[in-house]
This record gives sequence, C-alpha cells and structure tokens, in this order.
Amino acid sequence: METAKGKTWWEPFDQLLIATGANPIYPQVPGIDAAGIHTFSTLQSGIEVRRSVDERKPHTAVIVGGGYIGLEMAEALLLRGLDVSLIEMAPQVMNTLDREMGSIVAESLRHAGVHLYLEEPLEGFEVSDGRVQAVVTNRRALPADLVILAIGVRPNVALASEAGVPLGETGAIKVNERMQTPVAGVWAAGDCCESFHLVSRRPFWVALGTVANKQGRVAGINVGGGYATFPGVVGTAITKFRDLEIARTGLQEKEIQQLGWEYESVRIESRTRAHYYPDAGPITVKLLAEKGSGRLLGGQIVGKNGAAKRIDVLAVALHAGLTVDELINVDLSYAPPYSPVWDAVQIAARQVAKKV
Amino acid sequence: METAKGKTWWEPFDQLLIATGANPIYPQVPGIDAAGIHTFSTLQSGIEVRRSVDERKPHTAVIVGGGYIGLEMAEALLLRGLDVSLIEMAPQVMNTLDREMGSIVAESLRHAGVHLYLEEPLEGFEVSDGRVQAVVTNRRALPADLVILAIGVRPNVALASEAGVPLGETGAIKVNERMQTPVAGVWAAGDCCESFHLVSRRPFWVALGTVANKQGRVAGINVGGGYATFPGVVGTAITKFRDLEIARTGLQEKEIQQLGWEYESVRIESRTRAHYYPDAGPITVKLLAEKGSGRLLGGQIVGKNGAAKRIDVLAVALHAGLTVDELINVDLSYAPPYSPVWDAVQIAARQVAKKV
Repeated sequence: METAKGKTWWEPFDQLLIATGANPIYPQVPGIDAAGIHTFSTLQSGIEVRRSVDERKPHTAVIVGGGYIGLEMAEALLLRGLDVSLIEMAPQVMNTLDREMGSIVAESLRHAGVHLYLEEPLEGFEVSDGRVQAVVTNRRALPADLVILAIGVRPNVALASEAGVPLGETGAIKVNERMQTPVAGVWAAGDCCESFHLVSRRPFWVALGTVANKQGRVAGINVGGGYATFPGVVGTAITKFRDLEIARTGLQEKEIQQLGWEYESVRIESRTRAHYYPDAGPITVKLLAEKGSGRLLGGQIVGKNGAAKRIDVLAVALHAGLTVDELINVDLSYAPPYSPVWDAVQIAARQVAKKV
Repeated sequence: METAKGKTWWEPFDQLLIATGANPIYPQVPGIDAAGIHTFSTLQSGIEVRRSVDERKPHTAVIVGGGYIGLEMAEALLLRGLDVSLIEMAPQVMNTLDREMGSIVAESLRHAGVHLYLEEPLEGFEVSDGRVQAVVTNRRALPADLVILAIGVRPNVALASEAGVPLGETGAIKVNERMQTPVAGVWAAGDCCESFHLVSRRPFWVALGTVANKQGRVAGINVGGGYATFPGVVGTAITKFRDLEIARTGLQEKEIQQLGWEYESVRIESRTRAHYYPDAGPITVKLLAEKGSGRLLGGQIVGKNGAAKRIDVLAVALHAGLTVDELINVDLSYAPPYSPVWDAVQIAARQVAKKV
C-alpha cells in the first residue's frame, strides 16, 4: 500500500471516521500573506511563534481577537517583554461572557499594560519587503513586529461536504448521539462535527479539546462495535489571564434572547475563601435562570485564587436540569481555606431565586 | 422583662426555635479536669488556647483525635513550633475517608513531623499540681505541656429532651424538611437536629457550619410565616493539612456496607493541571457506585494545588442522583492550568463505570 506523503490513493472502508478538526479563520484582507502574521492550528505553529520571538526579538505585538487564544497569547507575549496591543471588533473581549463580565477581563488586560482597542475591526496590514509592519483597523494603524491572528476557527468540513455527508444548521457535520453521520458507515467526531446543547436543546458547535476528546471516545467505542452515546454539552469553557480566572457555562444573555426565552439574572461579588483567611480573592458570579421554572440557564465566573473551577458545579447542575432553588441547598463543601460558609455560586442562586 | 445573666424566668412563645448546637465529647477518664486540656466549642476556647501558647510557651502538644479539628490543630501547633503528637483510637486518621485514602493523610502528618499513634485509645492523663503532664494511652504515656481534645461532638439535646421534644434515631432532634419538630410550634436547626441523607435516604446527623446555616435559613423563613424546605445533605466535607487538600462526599465503604448495598469502587491518581503545566499537583480520587444501577454513591479526594474543591462536582452529581455513566460525559471545564483534558473525577468515573 502506498502511503508516502503527497501521493493520492484509494482506500476502501467498512467504517469511516471523519476527524478533520477545525481551521483558523483567515480573513481575506490586504497584506494577510505577509511574513510575521501567525495563526495557531498545530503544535508546529506554536513552535514557530516562539522561534520568531527568540530569533527576531520583536518589540511590538498586535493580537487580533480578544477570545481565549488572544488572551493566552497576550499573557505569553507580555511575559516575553513585548509591547502588546489587542484589537477586537466587538465592544468587549471574551464574547462568550456577558458584557459586564467581559469588562472585568478588559480591565485586567489594561492593568497589565495591554493596549486594548474595542470595536475596531481588522481592515488589513501594512507590509514592507514582504513582512508585516502594522495592523490597520477602521481607526488607526498599529505598528507591529509580530501579529497573532486569533479570531476563531471554523469546522473543517471540506472533505465531508465534497463527499455529500450532510452538514447541520451550525455548518458542522451533522451527527447523532452515537457520532454517526446520516451516511451509513460514516462517523464524525471532534471540532469538525456538531454537538447537542443540553440547555438550549438545539444543535451547537464548539471547538474545544475536552468535547472533542469525549466525542472521540464515544465514536471509537461505536466504530469498534460497542455502544456509547455522547449526550451533548452545556457550553463550559475556562481560561485565565495572569492571575484572573475566567469561566462560563450554559447560555449567555444574547443566546437566551435569541431563543425567545424569558430569564432573570444576578451578579454578585464575594470571596474565594473565608474573609479572614489569607489570600481570599475576589470572585464575581453571574447566574441566569429561566423565568417561571427557575431552571438554571447559565453562569459566568471571574475572579482569583481558585474562583473559576467552581464553574463545574454549575456545569453539573445544568446537566441535571437543576433549578436555582435546588442549587441553593446543594451540599457544597465548606472550610475557611476554600470558601465562605455560603459559596459564591449559592449566594448568587439565592438572589436569582427571589426574582424568577 | 428580666434578662440579667444567671436569672431564671418564664417567657411565653408562639413559635420556638431550638438552636442549641453541639457539645464537644468530654470523656470521663482520670485527670480530664486538669489545666492544660482544651476543647473547642466557642470562639473563646480558641482564644484561650492561643493565649496559653503565647504565655506558657509549651514545648509538647498531644492532640487526641485525628479528625478535622485534630488535623487543623496539628497544623496550627506545628506552625507555632511545638512538638506535636496525635493519638487516634481508630486504625486510621480521618475516619470519614476509607482506609487507603486516610493513609495518604497519615503519611502527610508523619512527613510533617507529627508523631502519630493509631489504635491507641485515650485512657487518662497524668496530672501534677492540677496541670496535665502526660496523655496516657493503652500503650504509653506521652508527655504533654498542652492537650487538645478533638474527639468529636454530640448534639446538645438536653433542653429538647427534658421538654419532651422527640429525638430521632441518630440521637439528634427529629425535624421534617421545614425544620419543624413533631411538637407544634417548636422548630429546630443546626447541630442539635437531624438532617436527611439524600444518598442513603435515611436520617443523618452531621455537625457542620454549612449545613447548620442552610437549616437556619429554612427555619427562619418558615418561622416568619414563609415557606421553605431543606431537602437534606449528601455528606460533603473538606479540610486540609498543610498543602494536602482533603475532601469527601456521599457514602464511604463502611456506610454502604451497613446499608447492605452492593457497590464497586475505584481509586485513580492523576494531576490537578495538565502534566506539562507548572505546579501540577497529585490528586487521588476514589469513587463508589452502586452495583447494577451505576448510581454514584460517594467520592473522596486527596491531593494538592486545587484538588479538593472538585468534591463539589460529586456533591451536585449525588444531589441529582447521577450515574457514573452520566458523570463521564458531563461538560466539565478544561484548560491546562486547571486540569488535564479528562478531569480526575471523570477518569475515575470511566473506570468505575466499567465495573458496575
């Protein structure tokens, strides 16, 4: 069998798993092909950015996009001593958070010295001798020795699409709970295919390693003749910027509004440990609950010193369909090094339960 | 109205809330009344121990009891430079953990320099001039300038009992979900009354601030003419010894055995962060699941750097009655600073799910 790189051949199959992942979005703006503009899709692309920093010793970096990758790169490049700017076309960073939660993150970026330009879409690049010189927005040109493009990814569905494997309404490959596509013998898993959102009860697409890994496990069991199902996701994600921890799960306000559902929300501030305990950090928790039913719809957490991993409490609650009234009385752990007597998520649950 | 301290008077009531708390167990052994032997029941008793350390500068401390309070005091007294011994009548410390999980804690105590004497019940004290000189076990006499008695508490039901308010099978005051005792107009909340255990589905007594606080809230709403219920607990508790974090929830092996239920268990070792991330700490997770149904019955976590707060994931899962199969696919957060792609609790869930 011929397997050499660059050769094309035919390979018969009984079962086919499509696991083509996602591709970074690469906007067709002037100068996009210049040297010094980086995206991340493979380990190799990360190695190349690091080598470029080591060898070219850039002074100024511009990051395009204020999501998870943009924030992580801002932290990394600040650590390497670069002057870092970040442009974002939306009015906030971290678009998967509601606006006021995103503004806590923006404040942290600014405090760390990141020059933040919101509502400034990328229009192109100034290029000299084939190398990027500046990033051009609708308002300014920002000098850049190094550019990081981090404006998201799209499911890589080219192969599936050409082969006639149906895509879902999200644009990713349509699969059922066993990770079967509608074409007999063809399966898909990972960033190239859809998930089901257990809170909105609709198809949903998210490109995250943890979801892809779970889907891969289920697909593997089924392709191997076993039986397993992947019920879906609740939209959990977590990141950090320096010492600020950031997490979200479920639906955010704009998603609930798009569904036409009614909801109530609260945002509370507390501490990650008992107030008298050393290193008690601030924690802000936002909860969203369905009007009438009181069903928990989503939660967002921003804070320090152990704040963010609490998102998993909300993820399990969403999975189980708990109401905020039920969440109030869940037997969460308490000791002064870990939380106040009422954990921040339960303080928030108490407040939103009064409103729904 | 007469309210002076030490006076006795009659006060009529429409609604009565009994919130008499718990009392430390004070064993009637020779020498128990000597100076230098301390228990903790009030803030004042903590202040007195600290003052005693400040003023008398004791060299040796013996702690009686290897539970939460015993461990916290061992840490505190080591920090103050004392030579610390700990005696425990059981074959392990932290009896609310299964044996092999408790042994991780014991190892940590020994590594920190605590002289640990297991299976050595307290038999009495050697006393000179009214002050404790040594703690006597079945095997030895341990010199002690300071003794901490931390062998647990009992519900303080004296008032309720004398007044004819029924106690439950646990020995604490019997209450329903609204925190009503069987006597009309009499309520109880906190360490003096029972809870309901949502996993064993039986009355349960636990003296923890977080449970007491939730019960107090529910009692207060009801006494005030509102309506609220406290559904019960799942047995969550958390503590730490130095940098070792310790947590448990649900039923432990001996509790399941007492119920006559069949179960499977696993114990896995993982890391608290991605393996390549700085400060990834060890984490050991034990899960217990019901044979046949696969219902999660309990979990125990010992580890470092953020290990223990994961117990809340299991607490919510127990509250919701999730099976370990369901737990495998819950959308928990993942980013390298917070966990491996598969969080330790899900690695454990995968393994126990294969056995039930």
